[in-house]
Amino acid sequence: MKIISFVTADGPAAGFLDGSDAVVCVEGAAARSAVLDVIASGPEALSRWRDGALRRVPLSQVRLLSPIPEPCRDIFCIGKNYHAHAAEFHSSGFDSSAKEAVPSHPVVFTKPTTSVCGPGDVVRASLDPTQSVDYEGELGVVIGTRCFGVKAADAFDHVFGYVIVNDVTSRELQRRHNQWVIGKGIDTFCPMGPWIATADEVSDVTALELVTEINGEVRQHAQVADLIFDIPTLIETMSATMTLLPGDIIATGTPVGVGIGFKPPRYLGPGDMMRVSITGLGVLENPVG
Amino acid sequence: MKIISFVTADGPAAGFLDGSDAVVCVEGAAARSAVLDVIASGPEALSRWRDGALRRVPLSQVRLLSPIPEPCRDIFCIGKNYHAHAAEFHSSGFDSSAKEAVPSHPVVFTKPTTSVCGPGDVVRASLDPTQSVDYEGELGVVIGTRCFGVKAADAFDHVFGYVIVNDVTSRELQRRHNQWVIGKGIDTFCPMGPWIATADEVSDVTALELVTEINGEVRQHAQVADLIFDIPTLIETMSATMTLLPGDIIATGTPVGVGIGFKPPRYLGPGDMMRVSITGLGVLENPVG
Repeated sequence: MKIISFVTADGPAAGFLDGSDAVVCVEGAAARSAVLDVIASGPEALSRWRDGALRRVPLSQVRLLSPIPEPCRDIFCIGKNYHAHAAEFHSSGFDSSAKEAVPSHPVVFTKPTTSVCGPGDVVRASLDPTQSVDYEGELGVVIGTRCFGVKAADAFDHVFGYVIVNDVTSRELQRRHNQWVIGKGIDTFCPMGPWIATADEVSDVTALELVTEINGEVRQHAQVADLIFDIPTLIETMSATMTLLPGDIIATGTPVGVGIGFKPPRYLGPGDMMRVSITGLGVLENPVG
Repeated sequence: MKIISFVTADGPAAGFLDGSDAVVCVEGAAARSAVLDVIASGPEALSRWRDGALRRVPLSQVRLLSPIPEPCRDIFCIGKNYHAHAAEFHSSGFDSSAKEAVPSHPVVFTKPTTSVCGPGDVVRASLDPTQSVDYEGELGVVIGTRCFGVKAADAFDHVFGYVIVNDVTSRELQRRHNQWVIGKGIDTFCPMGPWIATADEVSDVTALELVTEINGEVRQHAQVADLIFDIPTLIETMSATMTLLPGDIIATGTPVGVGIGFKPPRYLGPGDMMRVSITGLGVLENPVG
């Protein structure tokens, strides 16, 4: 299933995508947390959604939101998790926080919940006083079950699905503040969507291809197979000491091709259009304002 | 008021401390989010709590929880925010993430919600496979209003109150993973409490004194006045680009005297007792297990 949160003429809703229709399963005040609720309630809840669908609305008549409009906590993100990107970031001069180009252990940071926005939403580059805004197309993993001490071999048992995340970043704030919450956490700097593809829709996640285009020009093109720390390793490492929650999102890192990989850097500004696509996960487009 | 979450013989509750009594204002299922709700509802909600109190229970008959048992998102923390501690951390060899001892800008990171525990709860040092657990007594600021773009001069208008936080850390995981979420985010590594003192109880926050004792030995003793980036500066800096939410917690940094300041480092292990106290904010004691 392709899980979505959206707004119809009648207000907020949650449900799934079926062809060119948005199927409404929850409406009203409960809709904003409905996707988190359905994830936490397990597979039967998804069946109940399907069987108890309220109505269908053509996709053209709804506005998609981030599939989880209000995450239960901050978004986990992995830094420097593709070899060529680790090298480009390290040599850019903006990596104030590491001596080595390729990390020996996963680099984990968070983006605050208030940075989340949805497909089509304007990413407000004007909020960055340093005007050094950069894109990072990424595969996001959505955790399905509360878990701790997960072994890599069992990791996919705890994955609910996958979603595109754009880890938009102020490079100068990332550098200045050393830890990355400020540079990564600006309001609207975490576009997510358009849908969560449930894990059963993805037979081999390593085969997925990610493409990021800026104003129609391809900047990033990579396969998930190229991750330095793969998804099972990330889940094993993180859950070794931290309980993961249903609805947790892990943005797995960005491949080579970000703006600071160019000399001089190619930053984003008002009027630019970002477009991230991943096989089977749709297209996440956000204008820069 | 001294705002508390607790458990009585009848189950979860929230309310305030009055002398040696816990005053019950909310009971049952709503209690776990009651303190977040009362913060978000503004000053009148606190008056309604006081006027509509349900009953009193001697403090000796309740178990205090973290005053916010389930934060609305991860806890913001400030690194290296006292001069002498910045120097001790920098020279310890564990600061893999910075070239300079004293930061030019606030170092902001997060502790996941699942790391939160309450007064008296066991901090599970055994979860750290590297056995390099260290304490960090800190003053926590609780944000009272949704805010963005706050000027330093107005910052205290957005403070609901203050609480003790112990930013327990695995030094080796902090170093290895470069960004600090893993080393700082272990389950139970964020003791908080025993109460939130509302801002009106604290006439001059810079005059508050923090003392951390390990097994009765004083290790940290500092005044909030010694912060490198003071509370108004932190709120101005963070809210310049990120919306802050009612119930957000900002742990403002730890003073000199942590375990890695000693040579060799003095790590915590099972049987140790941590005790952090701050003027007017009570005592936060946690055994290490």
